[in-house]
Amino acid sequence: MKIIGIDPGLRNMGWGVIETDGPRLRHVANGIIHSDGGDLGPRLLVLFRGLSQVIATHAPDAAAVEQTFVNKDAVGTLKLGQARGIALLAPAEAGLEIGEYAPNAVKKAVVGVGHAGKEQVEHMVRFMLPGVELAGPDAADALAIAICHAHHLQGRSLRIKASA
Amino acid sequence: MKIIGIDPGLRNMGWGVIETDGPRLRHVANGIIHSDGGDLGPRLLVLFRGLSQVIATHAPDAAAVEQTFVNKDAVGTLKLGQARGIALLAPAEAGLEIGEYAPNAVKKAVVGVGHAGKEQVEHMVRFMLPGVELAGPDAADALAIAICHAHHLQGRSLRIKASA
Repeated sequence: MKIIGIDPGLRNMGWGVIETDGPRLRHVANGIIHSDGGDLGPRLLVLFRGLSQVIATHAPDAAAVEQTFVNKDAVGTLKLGQARGIALLAPAEAGLEIGEYAPNAVKKAVVGVGHAGKEQVEHMVRFMLPGVELAGPDAADALAIAICHAHHLQGRSLRIKASA
Repeated sequence: MKIIGIDPGLRNMGWGVIETDGPRLRHVANGIIHSDGGDLGPRLLVLFRGLSQVIATHAPDAAAVEQTFVNKDAVGTLKLGQARGIALLAPAEAGLEIGEYAPNAVKKAVVGVGHAGKEQVEHMVRFMLPGVELAGPDAADALAIAICHAHHLQGRSLRIKASA
């Protein structure tokens, strides 16, 4: 199954698609959709169209979006909220179920501890998806979110098998 | 020209369409799109589809969205941000220019003072749009935002005429 992970941001919206085959993971694609400056409506439209295009191209079966930090300043939180609305809308419009994970849950799934730094996350993403070329830190985060969702689904599928 | 005003909210997204003919205002329609409970993605999709449908039906020439209060708690601000992302995306996707107004600018345009209460705003909306039936407080706010934008555009047009 294919999973898209999305790291929401107004300036940089990171995305990453992986494919799972049981416990095996394979990198499919990753990237960052930029929307710099100008009016907010057109910026959100760029993010929405970009993300919808990525979903149409790679046809994932599931999506996962990072739960946003809310301990920023109010203006920053509002901006992030607006970007996050788009990050959730695009997969919802494509009919995908969306997993939501807190940043420390993502780090725990990828690195093994919830307080890992960005470099550690990127290192483990490279290790788990050999040969991957990363479009940038936000794309690495997005792949980590997809990996976290894969682990979550894998755990669910193992539990379903165990109880069958 | 037709103007749609939008009062963003995750649970209740208010909208109101007015028509202007020089300084004259006419009520066209108003309503509230509800999205109660459940996962965030599908809720945002309900708001987006509802708002896109309203825009397709009434074909406004311009849009105005309230600038959100950011002095709420962080979780509330994030939720509002997500709804506001949708409130901006739908008119942007329809190719509309979007005016953004702070709540006190809207009150000033409608009531004459920036610190007016909700009842005063509703009272003036009823006075300025005779015979209007309001779907609820969020729809009244949305009509007030549309009226504020009409005043703003009218002022701009008068200035353009004066300098022509």
